[in-house]
Amino acid sequence: MEFVDLNYSPTDEDLIALFLIEPAPSVDMLGAAAKVAAESSTGTWTELTTMSDRIRKISAKVFRVEGNKVLIAYPHVLFEPGSMSQIWSAIAGNLFGMKAVSSVRLEDVFWPSPLVKSFKGPLYGLYGVRSILNVKDRPILATVPKPKVGMTAEEHADVAYQVWVGGVDLVKDDENLTSLSFCKFEDRLKELMRRRDEAEKETGEKKAVLANVTAPFHEMNRRIRLVHDYGNEFVMIDILTAGWSAVQSAREIAEEYGLAIHAHRAFHAAFGRIRNHGVSMKVVAESARLVGVDNIHVGTVVGKLVSPKDEVISLVHLMRDRSMKEDLSRGILEKNWLDIRPVTPVSSGGLHPGIIADVLDIVGMDVIIQVGGGVLGHPEGPLSGARAFRQSIEAYLSGIDVGSYAEAHHELKVALEKWGRAHPM
Amino acid sequence: MEFVDLNYSPTDEDLIALFLIEPAPSVDMLGAAAKVAAESSTGTWTELTTMSDRIRKISAKVFRVEGNKVLIAYPHVLFEPGSMSQIWSAIAGNLFGMKAVSSVRLEDVFWPSPLVKSFKGPLYGLYGVRSILNVKDRPILATVPKPKVGMTAEEHADVAYQVWVGGVDLVKDDENLTSLSFCKFEDRLKELMRRRDEAEKETGEKKAVLANVTAPFHEMNRRIRLVHDYGNEFVMIDILTAGWSAVQSAREIAEEYGLAIHAHRAFHAAFGRIRNHGVSMKVVAESARLVGVDNIHVGTVVGKLVSPKDEVISLVHLMRDRSMKEDLSRGILEKNWLDIRPVTPVSSGGLHPGIIADVLDIVGMDVIIQVGGGVLGHPEGPLSGARAFRQSIEAYLSGIDVGSYAEAHHELKVALEKWGRAHPM
Repeated sequence: MEFVDLNYSPTDEDLIALFLIEPAPSVDMLGAAAKVAAESSTGTWTELTTMSDRIRKISAKVFRVEGNKVLIAYPHVLFEPGSMSQIWSAIAGNLFGMKAVSSVRLEDVFWPSPLVKSFKGPLYGLYGVRSILNVKDRPILATVPKPKVGMTAEEHADVAYQVWVGGVDLVKDDENLTSLSFCKFEDRLKELMRRRDEAEKETGEKKAVLANVTAPFHEMNRRIRLVHDYGNEFVMIDILTAGWSAVQSAREIAEEYGLAIHAHRAFHAAFGRIRNHGVSMKVVAESARLVGVDNIHVGTVVGKLVSPKDEVISLVHLMRDRSMKEDLSRGILEKNWLDIRPVTPVSSGGLHPGIIADVLDIVGMDVIIQVGGGVLGHPEGPLSGARAFRQSIEAYLSGIDVGSYAEAHHELKVALEKWGRAHPM
Repeated sequence: MEFVDLNYSPTDEDLIALFLIEPAPSVDMLGAAAKVAAESSTGTWTELTTMSDRIRKISAKVFRVEGNKVLIAYPHVLFEPGSMSQIWSAIAGNLFGMKAVSSVRLEDVFWPSPLVKSFKGPLYGLYGVRSILNVKDRPILATVPKPKVGMTAEEHADVAYQVWVGGVDLVKDDENLTSLSFCKFEDRLKELMRRRDEAEKETGEKKAVLANVTAPFHEMNRRIRLVHDYGNEFVMIDILTAGWSAVQSAREIAEEYGLAIHAHRAFHAAFGRIRNHGVSMKVVAESARLVGVDNIHVGTVVGKLVSPKDEVISLVHLMRDRSMKEDLSRGILEKNWLDIRPVTPVSSGGLHPGIIADVLDIVGMDVIIQVGGGVLGHPEGPLSGARAFRQSIEAYLSGIDVGSYAEAHHELKVALEKWGRAHPM
């Protein structure tokens, strides 16, 4: 059968895609798998007079099938080096709509060295971000001012000031807070920088903003430069709603200006949540690491958003480790990141001081923990909320249960009185 | 309940989103709907001390629930005018991952005039594209050379020449054919333009290329300019794998150079195929119309890719009509496109001369019909394949059954002998 060779041994220059396939009722697994390989490489639905042996040599090949897991090898020449959009158009394109399958999911990818080398990876990455913030021995703390949108630039910056002073390192814009009529991007940035300087002076700690520059590319470009001109170190991009094309060029500008990129993943669950169809968050995160974001959201397990524990653990390792072994049972293909720096995983979404320890047990120390409602919802206000957040981290680092630690820490006590240890929904 | 007001009458300045919601097992419909409205506007999972009456006024509100259909009104100030990425981050962002729902789908959107006016829409649109090609009284014919990838620039251009001479108007790059080592973008474009000139001279008809410029934005920008410099009228973008941010800025450059944009939808089925989750193709196509593509793929009903008839018909009207009435039974909200030009729908994916009539019955005359395998798979080669394609159109326009028409048209006869009237898979 064309596009199938179960005796094929992939070379380490082949891209390998792990698909979960449910064939359409009338189709057998190998037939469906062959159609996926065809559609994502050199094939189509009918025989061609224009096909040649030379072209057959670069066709994708199904080389292994285990249950619903199908491994397809793609010669790397099928891909444009350094173009994530093109790679997705091939291995995450038309194939999702094929009648030959009832559902199909791109679960993981082995990225071969010719492609890995064609991407820049993070400019800073995990250790660089720690170094910018001068935070060495604890998780990095971030807060997104809430309500998500609605505050004026002044109100927003005032909340930011309070949470910085309370002990948070990074203040993040929300994913839908870009430049709105009541809180224009430049006004907010200017106010934030003024209050950031105050907070730094007051605390002696480095503080920064994750400034959401998401916009049409020309405007994004302008906003990235503004972030630099106003003296901030980070830009934030909604990488999926902005898209790979813009993110890759933003990475170039970030290098020019020495900025780190914080990647928000809004939209990922539209195509990743249904576990037998679409594209897994692993593939999103790996693509983002190659393209060169410095931080990326990976979930919380215990928060308001669906993020299964096995997925979060996989993501943390995929972002931080230099290499990984294949583990098909967990849907993971081998990884070798070569010179691509590690990315800081961000745990965020419905966290509060009562459940921080649960998250840190899972994700470890080398993360950004981001708490929004769990800081801004503190009954005594944002400053106390941030203190309670930082206290919960101190408790964890000291190996003391947060409940005991709260006895001598008022803000933490009040937070626990409100939220207890409950996992929000 | 906050974020719910069943007595609310939306103003015509509210954006309205139609969601299909399946609440999580422990959650009732209104509770789940409220959480979707909250997460996509001003809310979070806990009560905030920073909330105010002024901000509550711009919260999204669930105002109507019919079965699993939930209508939510968003004051337009929640959105950044002219930024499709920001709009998607709000109404197509985190909400897909909420634990409060088992599944949730953004099915359609009413785009209020303040947002419609903030986008450019197509530079040419349906009538402009007809005018570029000087094709008035029949569908526009396109062919994508197959194999999708693998041919050299010369081979590719030679196939293009043959299909142009055979009667096709537009030759399209495949979605994963950008700039590959064996067929570099500029080499292909140059060869294509040379052969295009020959084909135009030979046929006396206008011919053009849908040149796939998908790439990191800076490189896309360069390729768009090349397309102009080499004298072609169309660029093609994989709009979803490139992303809204790049597409919007490409639209600006297209205007500067007078180019039309052909939108490929690779990736859409990753989040649109499962009918109770993700984002519908309607919302993708409407977003693309606002942003300003001139052509967009809408499916075939009868081809190799899943595209339900009701969806294709809706898409055709959503792209071509000036306005539409609400029809909740078909999952459609009101539309008023104001000055936004109509977009040319493209029907493509597994078509051949034997089923062209079935497609035209459904989509009408104001379309681009694109046939790849059904031209390149012709047993007598690409030139004959293109002739058979054009003959099948002539048959349809003359009201003659393609089988009868084939009696006096050899190429069509051979095509029907190979493919009959079968719907491929």
